[in-house]
Amino acid sequence: MDKTSPLYAQRHSAAHLLALAVKEQFDGAQLGTGPVTEHGFYYDVRTSTPITDADLKTLEKIIKKRIAQRLPFVRDEMSLEEARVLFAERNEPYKLELIDKIADRGAESVSVYRTGDSFVDLCEGPHVEHSGEINAKALKLTTLSGAYWQADEHNDQMTRIYGVLFSTPEELAEYEAMLREAARRDHRKLGKALDLFTFSDLVGPGLPLWTPRGALLRQLLDDYVWELRANHSYTRVAIPHITKKALYETSGHWQKFADELFRITSREGKDYAMKPMNCPHHTQIFARKPHSYRELPQRYAETTMVYRDEQSGELGGLTRVLSITQDDAHIFCRHNQLREEFFGVWDIIDTFYTTFGFTFKTVRLSFHDPDHPEKYLGTPDTWAKAEQTLRDIAAARGVDAEEAPGEAALYGPKVDFIATDSLGRTHQVATIQLDMNLPERFDLTCINEAGEKERIVMIHCAIMGSLERFIAVLLEHTAGKLPVRFAPVQAVVLPISDAHREYAMHVRDNLTATGARVDVRADGTTLGKRIRDAQTEQIPYMLIVGDQEVSTNTVAVRSRDDGDLGTMDYEAVRTCLES
Amino acid sequence: MDKTSPLYAQRHSAAHLLALAVKEQFDGAQLGTGPVTEHGFYYDVRTSTPITDADLKTLEKIIKKRIAQRLPFVRDEMSLEEARVLFAERNEPYKLELIDKIADRGAESVSVYRTGDSFVDLCEGPHVEHSGEINAKALKLTTLSGAYWQADEHNDQMTRIYGVLFSTPEELAEYEAMLREAARRDHRKLGKALDLFTFSDLVGPGLPLWTPRGALLRQLLDDYVWELRANHSYTRVAIPHITKKALYETSGHWQKFADELFRITSREGKDYAMKPMNCPHHTQIFARKPHSYRELPQRYAETTMVYRDEQSGELGGLTRVLSITQDDAHIFCRHNQLREEFFGVWDIIDTFYTTFGFTFKTVRLSFHDPDHPEKYLGTPDTWAKAEQTLRDIAAARGVDAEEAPGEAALYGPKVDFIATDSLGRTHQVATIQLDMNLPERFDLTCINEAGEKERIVMIHCAIMGSLERFIAVLLEHTAGKLPVRFAPVQAVVLPISDAHREYAMHVRDNLTATGARVDVRADGTTLGKRIRDAQTEQIPYMLIVGDQEVSTNTVAVRSRDDGDLGTMDYEAVRTCLES
Repeated sequence: MDKTSPLYAQRHSAAHLLALAVKEQFDGAQLGTGPVTEHGFYYDVRTSTPITDADLKTLEKIIKKRIAQRLPFVRDEMSLEEARVLFAERNEPYKLELIDKIADRGAESVSVYRTGDSFVDLCEGPHVEHSGEINAKALKLTTLSGAYWQADEHNDQMTRIYGVLFSTPEELAEYEAMLREAARRDHRKLGKALDLFTFSDLVGPGLPLWTPRGALLRQLLDDYVWELRANHSYTRVAIPHITKKALYETSGHWQKFADELFRITSREGKDYAMKPMNCPHHTQIFARKPHSYRELPQRYAETTMVYRDEQSGELGGLTRVLSITQDDAHIFCRHNQLREEFFGVWDIIDTFYTTFGFTFKTVRLSFHDPDHPEKYLGTPDTWAKAEQTLRDIAAARGVDAEEAPGEAALYGPKVDFIATDSLGRTHQVATIQLDMNLPERFDLTCINEAGEKERIVMIHCAIMGSLERFIAVLLEHTAGKLPVRFAPVQAVVLPISDAHREYAMHVRDNLTATGARVDVRADGTTLGKRIRDAQTEQIPYMLIVGDQEVSTNTVAVRSRDDGDLGTMDYEAVRTCLES
Repeated sequence: MDKTSPLYAQRHSAAHLLALAVKEQFDGAQLGTGPVTEHGFYYDVRTSTPITDADLKTLEKIIKKRIAQRLPFVRDEMSLEEARVLFAERNEPYKLELIDKIADRGAESVSVYRTGDSFVDLCEGPHVEHSGEINAKALKLTTLSGAYWQADEHNDQMTRIYGVLFSTPEELAEYEAMLREAARRDHRKLGKALDLFTFSDLVGPGLPLWTPRGALLRQLLDDYVWELRANHSYTRVAIPHITKKALYETSGHWQKFADELFRITSREGKDYAMKPMNCPHHTQIFARKPHSYRELPQRYAETTMVYRDEQSGELGGLTRVLSITQDDAHIFCRHNQLREEFFGVWDIIDTFYTTFGFTFKTVRLSFHDPDHPEKYLGTPDTWAKAEQTLRDIAAARGVDAEEAPGEAALYGPKVDFIATDSLGRTHQVATIQLDMNLPERFDLTCINEAGEKERIVMIHCAIMGSLERFIAVLLEHTAGKLPVRFAPVQAVVLPISDAHREYAMHVRDNLTATGARVDVRADGTTLGKRIRDAQTEQIPYMLIVGDQEVSTNTVAVRSRDDGDLGTMDYEAVRTCLES
């Protein structure tokens, strides 16, 4: 959020009050860092006795008392040495580490903020003038979690205390209502209610198993992406899910992807890895033979799984999984074809997400971190050129683009599409990535008009990105009410009694003959129960048939969204199902 | 082959003559075993100096000399002890091992066959009366390979010498012509010529990469299987390619699949494996909720890869790979639904293979090896019941069924379909397997009419089996001339000169609009070269366009199989492409 807004200063100041409260309440507590978040703030602290949920109330009370005291926030500039003495006296080893880092960057002084008599924190600001500027009624401590110091698992483990803070109590209430709605829409609950996926203790967390309905949903979504690709001459390719180490040594993944790679040693002692991405394999398909410039661009696409050795604590539902299904595509083209190819993918992304009612407020230009060139493949020159290309393309496309240094892929900068869902939450979804590095590493060329080898360039793109993540987002966005076109079961025929069962099957056969996905449900339970079940499963239409419908060759239609729609003939139902 | 046929005795006797020749030619040579094969015989021997291809001629000469000598084959029955003394004197340690095995089975005597003055072999027979019965002109030593004693890699390595033998020289010539034709049709050559798949040194042997045309061929074949499944209510499912060890401990694969399993240890030290089969995962989808008997059968299908840690010496082309794509299906049903379900799958298999011109002379009933119950899951009772069910089904289907003990799957007996290709070679392709063991191990049930849990039964079935293997067989069977329906490129439009290029694109667009797969090829090379290239790629139709075709809105059609077909309008071409 905007660092100059009053709310930013209020949230940041609330983080200091939280740290102050922890120091008061937990003897010897040591402070990490406490930044502002999307809806509030957090602070990472280390205490000798564990902090529990019960402590949150107490800490919140202390914060609110300090707010009422209108404590001044006073900035103080001092030399590095003075700061070291100050934080050493206060037994704050993490702050000392931060001072060393500041010194490494060549700074000669630091700023601290004092709050009241006893509290001081190393901080750049900005802050409120005094704590009375914070609206205590719009503040709440929410949750605890574990975190490693500086996000490095080899470092000390700390406790992260989260709080939210808004300008008004009404905004806090609105936020809490959104959270309740989000909990109601939790994709894990909906996945079970709609019978889309399941987990097995024997298979393990992070490894979803897709049921008939869930696998059909994946297929319908993937078919739609292929339909959108049809005007752009994509071809399918297919690759194995493992490779010899040599492929990733050449691509650079073996060195840079270190921890997240699932490694395998064969019975003969050979090193293999499960693929964490598909691009290196796809380069080998491109490289199978020389290509004339006339054959470019080549656009390879494949929906396939990649694997990441995530820590089990990070796994949950579909949003963090060990096996990720990507609708992955790679375009091999010449430099002068880049813009047109980017536009082509961008069109597909726009159409796809509009279909589901997602909006893109902005795109993110994910660039490399100039302070850490060692994290990436390629030279500064190549990066500068590639990043400027993306800036130009975004400008030509006429969108708001936000630059995010440090968010690039290993091999190049990205345009990331951030979708806003129906609850106002944002999710990173599609991506288009420019890559001038893998073509170097794998020596990918075309034969140009002069008969010479010419270095080509690659575009990596995914429309859904991870199917697992997209389906989680889609379920929460729609509260499980999938568009009729993508509902695995579009309608269920409910015979009122056994006498109408045969007619129900006739209705189903009539509708499925033209491609609709229709089931009959006649399991001996009451009509009321079967309607409630279909509603829980969010099946778009219930087609109820009794004596009257049999005699008039019609169905009584009930919509998931709009209730009773009255009697319809088959053609009218067909029109509903094709909507 | 039939053990009572004269040719069987001739081939078996030729194997003895081969052993005799090796003993004469290589001092101290020790003999393994020498059985009859489909077209001849082989003998496994161990020699102190290596046998080379150059030695084959010499050995063949010795054999033919012995044939001319009309040496008698004399059977001699002796006690185990006498036999031990005999073969110990002759320094034949492998024969002594075989005698021990015969003793273990409770035999009290063995038979040996003497040939001429000096040669004797442990053997049950039958043999020819004398070597003159063998037609020397129909015999040839062919190749050498390595083999482990008793096919166990921990044992001594031996040299396997292959020979062929027929009744007449004409049959030998016919066989050799077939071999030449098979070499011409080698799927590795055709895969490259048709640009279907490739291998990369960086990815490794046994890991094929499927090019755009190859991936399309896979898709067309898989779509066809799904089309045939459509009348049988199959549903898609989707599973990750790894699992925790626990799944395979429960299924029994962890213990029994030992060497062939690709094992993975995660960064947290957890044991995972890459899936060697899909059934255990699919059971977990079935087990996600209770099923009423009304919901059975459930038929889950998925085209997905499985992985086997094969030894690299065994890898070659598509026939032996590390990652195998299976069109795998599992039917969960009640015992009383077994026969109907088997028939349903059998119908699909019949239709599918008939489409490609394969014939099934017989099916194989692959049963367990009663001497080695420890190799399988389940009790003798379960196996007896399951095997009798398969016998009954095969009888009801009215086919020739050959029982093959020792060929069963880990969890149950199989019906294996052995297709005969256009060169008369046989290939194991589709399979239907009955499984009463995994439902026990994973406690799979339905709720029956009485409201009680009832144990169900599983059917494992695959139509193509391994897509890699099926495509290899299909390519060699058709010599690369894929049926028009399955040809990745069905036609290529060839403009005679640049002036006709625009019209060529018009023709292509017209044909692709109704779903045909048509390319334009206008790369500046001569028409002759482009025709030859299309012929090499076995593209079914070449549509040549020049001034005359432009003016009459037609194309000149050339068929891959029948040459020039004359001028046609678009509708006529469309009819060709839909054939």
